[in-house]
Amino acid sequence: MYLPKPFAVEDETQTFDFIEQNNFGILVTNIKRTTNANHVPFLLDREKRQLLGHFAKSNNQWRELEANKNVLVIFQGPHAYISPSWYVSENLVPTWNFAAVHVYGEAEIVQSKDETFGIVESLSKKHESGFDRPWQSASMNQEVLQSMLGAIVGFKINIMQIQAKAKLSQNRSEKDQAGAIDALRKQGSEQELAIATLMQTELE
Amino acid sequence: MYLPKPFAVEDETQTFDFIEQNNFGILVTNIKRTTNANHVPFLLDREKRQLLGHFAKSNNQWRELEANKNVLVIFQGPHAYISPSWYVSENLVPTWNFAAVHVYGEAEIVQSKDETFGIVESLSKKHESGFDRPWQSASMNQEVLQSMLGAIVGFKINIMQIQAKAKLSQNRSEKDQAGAIDALRKQGSEQELAIATLMQTELE
Repeated sequence: MYLPKPFAVEDETQTFDFIEQNNFGILVTNIKRTTNANHVPFLLDREKRQLLGHFAKSNNQWRELEANKNVLVIFQGPHAYISPSWYVSENLVPTWNFAAVHVYGEAEIVQSKDETFGIVESLSKKHESGFDRPWQSASMNQEVLQSMLGAIVGFKINIMQIQAKAKLSQNRSEKDQAGAIDALRKQGSEQELAIATLMQTELE
Repeated sequence: MYLPKPFAVEDETQTFDFIEQNNFGILVTNIKRTTNANHVPFLLDREKRQLLGHFAKSNNQWRELEANKNVLVIFQGPHAYISPSWYVSENLVPTWNFAAVHVYGEAEIVQSKDETFGIVESLSKKHESGFDRPWQSASMNQEVLQSMLGAIVGFKINIMQIQAKAKLSQNRSEKDQAGAIDALRKQGSEQELAIATLMQTELE
């Protein structure tokens, strides 16, 4: 990823927080110069420095991991168009502000059914935790659950390199940044508000 | 992309509309088994079946296009976690609903400065059109504009193959789909509402 200095995020805790907040990522594999990509939710194990996930067994991408373990995982955060009319300075051009993290890693297939169950169990706990009555796999017919577990393939990706980018007009004057933040807040979509919040944090 | 029949979008007009509505895409290139990706806004030329965009000249990805013209462009739409507790049926598991379009194509660098100007001009017109007083490049100092044009590289991608996916619980009963739509509307984030709207369209 093109990563000019003002937009590079060096703080790994901040980057790991971003991954957990934007964990529906894109797994990109490459076999014989052909790129394949799938959209899947990821778990992050900070201690082991691993990304964890699973495929439907009928999704052939897991076979590609066996042929070439080098993968890219893309996590996209909010993004928003920035109009030059929002800046105070003149002679600037349109741009797009966004945050994204790219993780390069080495993938391996999870061989144990228990370990695969651990991944899907942790994923559902993460996403159910905000609900009043979180769904639990224990409520399922356990034979059905076991048969469903047989239809998926778990994977882990050992993190080798991280590129974290927060393109938030840091190369503009404070007045220009403040103008864009105001305009984004007036625009008011959730993505625009999220970018305004990130820009405000950079400005402070 | 893993594309089971119920989730495959065959209507090209619908797919092109999706690209235009979600035009901040990811350009994925591949050189010597190393994958590179950048987040850039795209224009779609439906007649010529091309995606158009531009890089900063200091972003080396344009050199990769010269070495391997085969690229993947990923357009991500809304996405949302779906809890099994939202369905009427029992013994179902968590999933993620989303819409995404993958375009495989052959890229070429735009050699003419006028053509590159045409791309950035069309892009800013597209994104300024919703504003009361759209910004116009004519308002700029034209020497500054020319110098900025010299600092970017335009590209076109001839579309070779399109994979369009709308994973919206179409493999669930109508009652289960309706339950998930209701719950997403109660959750109420813009992404969840967007997924509910897409699911409703599938159901009708």
